[in-house]
Amino acid sequence: MQPLTVYLSGEIHTDWRTQVARGAEAEGLDIEFTMPVTDHEASDDCGVAILGGEETPFWKDHKGAKLNAIRTRTLIESADIVVVRFGDKYKQWNAAFDAGYAAALNTPLIVLHDPALTHALKEVDAASLAVAETPAQVVEILRYVQRGELRRAG
Amino acid sequence: MQPLTVYLSGEIHTDWRTQVARGAEAEGLDIEFTMPVTDHEASDDCGVAILGGEETPFWKDHKGAKLNAIRTRTLIESADIVVVRFGDKYKQWNAAFDAGYAAALNTPLIVLHDPALTHALKEVDAASLAVAETPAQVVEILRYVQRGELRRAG
Amino acid sequence: MQPLTVYLSGEIHTDWRTQVARGAEAEGLDIEFTMPVTDHEASDDCGVAILGGEETPFWKDHKGAKLNAIRTRTLIESADIVVVRFGDKYKQWNAAFDAGYAAALNTPLIVLHDPALTHALKEVDAASLAVAETPAQVVEILRYVQRGELRRAG
Amino acid sequence: MQPLTVYLSGEIHTDWRTQVARGAEAEGLDIEFTMPVTDHEASDDCGVAILGGEETPFWKDHKGAKLNAIRTRTLIESADIVVVRFGDKYKQWNAAFDAGYAAALNTPLIVLHDPALTHALKEVDAASLAVAETPAQVVEILRYVQRGELRRAG
Amino acid sequence: MQPLTVYLSGEIHTDWRTQVARGAEAEGLDIEFTMPVTDHEASDDCGVAILGGEETPFWKDHKGAKLNAIRTRTLIESADIVVVRFGDKYKQWNAAFDAGYAAALNTPLIVLHDPALTHALKEVDAASLAVAETPAQVVEILRYVQRGELRRAG
Amino acid sequence: MQPLTVYLSGEIHTDWRTQVARGAEAEGLDIEFTMPVTDHEASDDCGVAILGGEETPFWKDHKGAKLNAIRTRTLIESADIVVVRFGDKYKQWNAAFDAGYAAALNTPLIVLHDPALTHALKEVDAASLAVAETPAQVVEILRYVQRGELRRAG
Amino acid sequence: MQPLTVYLSGEIHTDWRTQVARGAEAEGLDIEFTMPVTDHEASDDCGVAILGGEETPFWKDHKGAKLNAIRTRTLIESADIVVVRFGDKYKQWNAAFDAGYAAALNTPLIVLHDPALTHALKEVDAASLAVAETPAQVVEILRYVQRGELRRAG
Amino acid sequence: MQPLTVYLSGEIHTDWRTQVARGAEAEGLDIEFTMPVTDHEASDDCGVAILGGEETPFWKDHKGAKLNAIRTRTLIESADIVVVRFGDKYKQWNAAFDAGYAAALNTPLIVLHDPALTHALKEVDAASLAVAETPAQVVEILRYVQRGELRRAG
Repeated sequence: MQPLTVYLSGEIHTDWRTQVARGAEAEGLDIEFTMPVTDHEASDDCGVAILGGEETPFWKDHKGAKLNAIRTRTLIESADIVVVRFGDKYKQWNAAFDAGYAAALNTPLIVLHDPALTHALKEVDAASLAVAETPAQVVEILRYVQRGELRRAG
Repeated sequence: MQPLTVYLSGEIHTDWRTQVARGAEAEGLDIEFTMPVTDHEASDDCGVAILGGEETPFWKDHKGAKLNAIRTRTLIESADIVVVRFGDKYKQWNAAFDAGYAAALNTPLIVLHDPALTHALKEVDAASLAVAETPAQVVEILRYVQRGELRRAG
Repeated sequence: MQPLTVYLSGEIHTDWRTQVARGAEAEGLDIEFTMPVTDHEASDDCGVAILGGEETPFWKDHKGAKLNAIRTRTLIESADIVVVRFGDKYKQWNAAFDAGYAAALNTPLIVLHDPALTHALKEVDAASLAVAETPAQVVEILRYVQRGELRRAG
Repeated sequence: MQPLTVYLSGEIHTDWRTQVARGAEAEGLDIEFTMPVTDHEASDDCGVAILGGEETPFWKDHKGAKLNAIRTRTLIESADIVVVRFGDKYKQWNAAFDAGYAAALNTPLIVLHDPALTHALKEVDAASLAVAETPAQVVEILRYVQRGELRRAG
Repeated sequence: MQPLTVYLSGEIHTDWRTQVARGAEAEGLDIEFTMPVTDHEASDDCGVAILGGEETPFWKDHKGAKLNAIRTRTLIESADIVVVRFGDKYKQWNAAFDAGYAAALNTPLIVLHDPALTHALKEVDAASLAVAETPAQVVEILRYVQRGELRRAG
Repeated sequence: MQPLTVYLSGEIHTDWRTQVARGAEAEGLDIEFTMPVTDHEASDDCGVAILGGEETPFWKDHKGAKLNAIRTRTLIESADIVVVRFGDKYKQWNAAFDAGYAAALNTPLIVLHDPALTHALKEVDAASLAVAETPAQVVEILRYVQRGELRRAG
Repeated sequence: MQPLTVYLSGEIHTDWRTQVARGAEAEGLDIEFTMPVTDHEASDDCGVAILGGEETPFWKDHKGAKLNAIRTRTLIESADIVVVRFGDKYKQWNAAFDAGYAAALNTPLIVLHDPALTHALKEVDAASLAVAETPAQVVEILRYVQRGELRRAG
Repeated sequence: MQPLTVYLSGEIHTDWRTQVARGAEAEGLDIEFTMPVTDHEASDDCGVAILGGEETPFWKDHKGAKLNAIRTRTLIESADIVVVRFGDKYKQWNAAFDAGYAAALNTPLIVLHDPALTHALKEVDAASLAVAETPAQVVEILRYVQRGELRRAG
C-alpha cells in the first residue's frame, strides 16, 4: 500500500506519540508522523518570543496560538489520517478543535482515550472511524490499514 | 443587509441562547437562530429511545451522538455565522469540535467565554473573528454586522 | 428549526416512502421529501420512450439510467439528509450507490433495513449516522432532528 | 504519460485483481494498484480483534467496517481511476457504495461485470466511463489510457 | 418535486429556446429557464457600447465576451441542469465551452443536436446524461425529471 | 433573469454606491446590493466599542478589522457579482484584498477606477471581467447582465 | 521555480505539440507535457476495439469518447496549466469543451490560434490568461512563467 | 517535519526575499521558496514582448498582468504558506490581492510590514496568522513552524 501521513493531535503530557511512532517503526510501516509543537513552553511563548512582547495575557496567547496554527493547519490539511488523543488532565479544547477540523475535511479520524472519558467525548467519538484505548491499538490499526494483514491473539 | 442564519453552539446549562435571541429580537434584527438540542436528557437518550436500547454505555452514547450529529452538521453547514459558548463546567469538547468544524468550512466564528478561560481556549480564540465575554456583546456584534451601525456608550 | 429537504432513496416495492411522508405530516414536520421515480416500468423505459428505441438491452438500460440520474443527482445534491432503504429482494445496487454518493458529499445518511441484512450492509451502515429498522423510527428521527424533542415510551 | 494510481474495488472471491495487476505488469505499465483488504476473514474480524470484542453482531460489524473505511476512503480519495468489479454472488453493496463515492468525487470509473448483471447495474454503469466484461479488457483500457496506443486484433 | 433552474446554452439562430420554454409551460412544469444574451448584435457589441470603443477587433471581442461571461457564469453556476444546443452553422465554441464548464461542476448536462453532428460532438455527448434531437424531447425529459411520469406513445 | 446579489467593495469617501444603487433602481433592476460598513468611524472603532478598549493601536485595529470581516466575508461568499471601486486617495488595500478573495472563489468581478490608476491596478484588472470608469457604466453592465438588452447611444 | 505539468489540448492534425515540447526542451525547461491520444484512428476506434463492436455509429462514438475521457479528465485535473490549440479545420468541440472544463477548475488557460479565428473564439479567449498565435510564443510564455526571465528581441 | 513550500508575495524593491531565503538556508530549513517575477521591467513588458505590441497602455498592462497571473496563481495554489510584504512605496495592490486570494483558499498567511502601515493594513493583518516587522522574524517563524523549536533571547 501507499505511504501514509498521520497527524498526531492532542495531549502533550505523556509519551503516547513516541509509543505510536516506535511501534510503527518496529512493524516496518511506511508512515510519516506529523504533530503540533509538543514543547509546552515553546508552544505558549512562541508568539511573544518571536514577534515581541504583549502586556495582556490575551494577546500573548493569541499571538502564540496563531503561530502554532500555521503549523497545525498545514499539517492537518495534508494528513491522510488524523489521530487525536485525550488525556485525563486539562481542557484539551485544541484537541477537540482539531477533530472537528478533520471531520469537516472528511479525513479519517482515530480517537484515543480512556473509557472513563467516553460520555464526555461521545460527539468526537461519533465522528471518528475508530476509538482506541491504547497507543498499541493505534499502531495495530495503522498496521492493518497499511498492510491489510490482521494479527490475531494466540 | 441580508437575513442571517446564526448557529449557537456549546454550553447548555445557562440561558445564554435565550439572552442572545431576545436581545436580537429587541433590536429588530432579521436573524434566524439555530442550535443543537439543548434538553440534556433528550440529547443523551435519543439514540436508545428511538432506535432501541444498548447494553454498554459506549454504544448508547454512540447512537445518541450520531443522531444529534444529523441535526448539528446540517445546521452548521447552513449557518452564515457560528457562535460557540464555553462555560466554566464540564469538558465541552463538542463545543470545541463545532468550532473546528466551522473553521475548516471558513465560516465566521464568534467565541463567547469568561476571561478566566482565555489560556485554555487560545487555539479556538485564534481561529475566531471575535471573542466576547457576554451575550449582550454577541447581540451587539450581530447588530453591527447586520445593520452596520455602531452604538457608542453615552 | 429550519425546513428540511430529505431524499428517500432505495427500495421501490413497498410503501415505506408513503409511511415516512405520512408520519412526518401527522407530526406537522416542515420537511420536503424528494425521491427517485418510483414507477418501476417508467424508470426502466424512460430512455427509449423519450429518446428512441435501442436494439440491445445494454443501451436501453444505459439511456434510461442516465435520464434517471438527471433527477437523482440533482435531488441528492440539494438534500439536507439522505435516507436509503434496503429491502429483502433484488440487488439494489443503485441504493448503495446513492449512499456512497451522499457519503462523499458529507451529507448526513440514515439507513433503513431489516436486521437480517446487517452483515451485508456493514460498510453502508458504517458510513451512516443512524440505522433504523422501521419507517416509524425514521419519522421519529426526523421529528427529533427538526424539533429537538424526544418522545419517550410510556 | 504520468504514473497512475488505480483503486480496485469490489468482489474478493475471484483472482481478478491479480489478473489486472499481472496484465499491467506484463505490458510494462507504470501503475500503482491499491485495493481494500481482500482477506475476507480479516476484513470481518479486524474491529473486534484490534479494539476488543462485542456482544452483538451489529457492533462487531460496525467496528470492523469502520476500520476498513479508514483504508478504503484514503485510497479512493487518492486514486486517479477507480475500477469496481461485481461478481455473481453476494450482495456486494460495498462495491456499489464505492462506485457512488467515486462518482461524487468526479473520479473516472470503470465497471467490470458479466453481461447478465447489466440490468441490475444500470445506474452504476451509467455513472461509469467504461463497462468491461473481463480483466483483460481492463488491462487494455489502462494500457490505452496510459500509453495512448491501440492494439487491434490481428 | 422541487422547482428546477435550467440553463439553455448554445445556438441562437433558431427558436429552440422558445420551443422548450413554451413546451414546459404547456405542461405546467415549475421550471425557471435562464440563458445567455440571445440578441447576436448586442452580444457582439456590448463591450464597446458600454465601456468604450476599441481600435482592434481582438479587444472589441474580448471586452464583449467578458461582459457576457458575467452573465453566463453566474447562471451556469446556479443552474440545476444545463442544456446545450448545437446547430448546423458556425463554430459554436462557446456552446462546447459551457458544456465543459458544466461537466467540471458535475452539473447534469443534456445535449441537443442533429444526428449528423454525432461524430463531431462525441466528447460532449459522452459527458452528458442525455442526447436529444428535438426540443420536444428536451421538454419530455424535463417533464419526466420533474414529475416522474412517463408518457408513452399511443 | 434571476435576481442578483451584488457586493459593492472598496472606496467609502464618495457616493459611488448610491449612484449605482439609484441607477439600478431607476432601471427597475432586481438587484440586492450588499456592502461593507461605510461609516468610517464606526468601521474603525467597532472592535473596542463593542468588545472593550485596547492600549495599542495594533490590537484596536485588529479587533475592529475582524468584526468587519464577519460582515464582509459573509456577504462576499453569498454575492453573485463583486464590484470593487478604487479611488484616488488612501491605500485601499482592503479593496484589493476583496478582489483577490472574489477571484479565488471564481466569482465574476467588476473593477471601477479612473484610467490614471490603470498601471497600478493591472493585476486586479486582469482578474476582472470588466473595468469601468464610472458608476453609470456599472449600472449599464448590471442592466445588460440582468436584462440582456443593450442600450446604444443615439 | 517548481516543475510544471502542462496539458496540451486540441488540434491533432499539425505538429504543434512537438514544436512546443521541443522548444521547451531546447530551453531546458522542467515541464512535463501531457496530452490526449493524438492518433486519430486510435482515438475513434478505441471503444469498439477494446470493449466490442457496436451496430450504430452513435454508440461506437460514445464508447470511444468515454474511454478517451478517462485519460483526458485525469490529465486536465492534474495539470498546472492547460494550453488549447484551435486549427482551421474541423469543429474541434472537444478543444472548447476542455477549455471550459479548465476554466471551471480555475486552472490557468493559454489559447493558441490564428487571428482569423478571433471572433469565433472570443468566449474561450476571454476565459484565458494568454492568447498566442504560434507554438514559439507558447514556449516563450512557459519559459517566462517558469524562469521569470524575459528575452527581448535584439 | 515535512518540507514546506512558501510563496513570497509583494514588494519587489528591497531584498527582503533574499534575506528570508538566506536566513532559512542558514538555519538548514527544508523550504522551497517561490515568488512572482521580481524583475520589474520584465514583469511590465512581458505581455507585449512575447505576444506583440499594443497601442494603448491599458492593453499592454492587461496582457502583461495576465501572463504574470499564470505564474502567480499556479504558485499560490500550490503553496503551504503565503508571506506578503508591504513596503512604504507604491500602491502594491497586487500584494493585497494575493493576500485575499490566499485567505479565500484558507492558506496560512504571514504579513510583513512596518508598524507605520498598521492602520492601512488592518484588514489584511486580520486575515493573517502572523504580522512580522522584519525578514528575520519571518525566518524565525518558519523555523519554529518547521522545527518546532523556539530560540529564546539570551
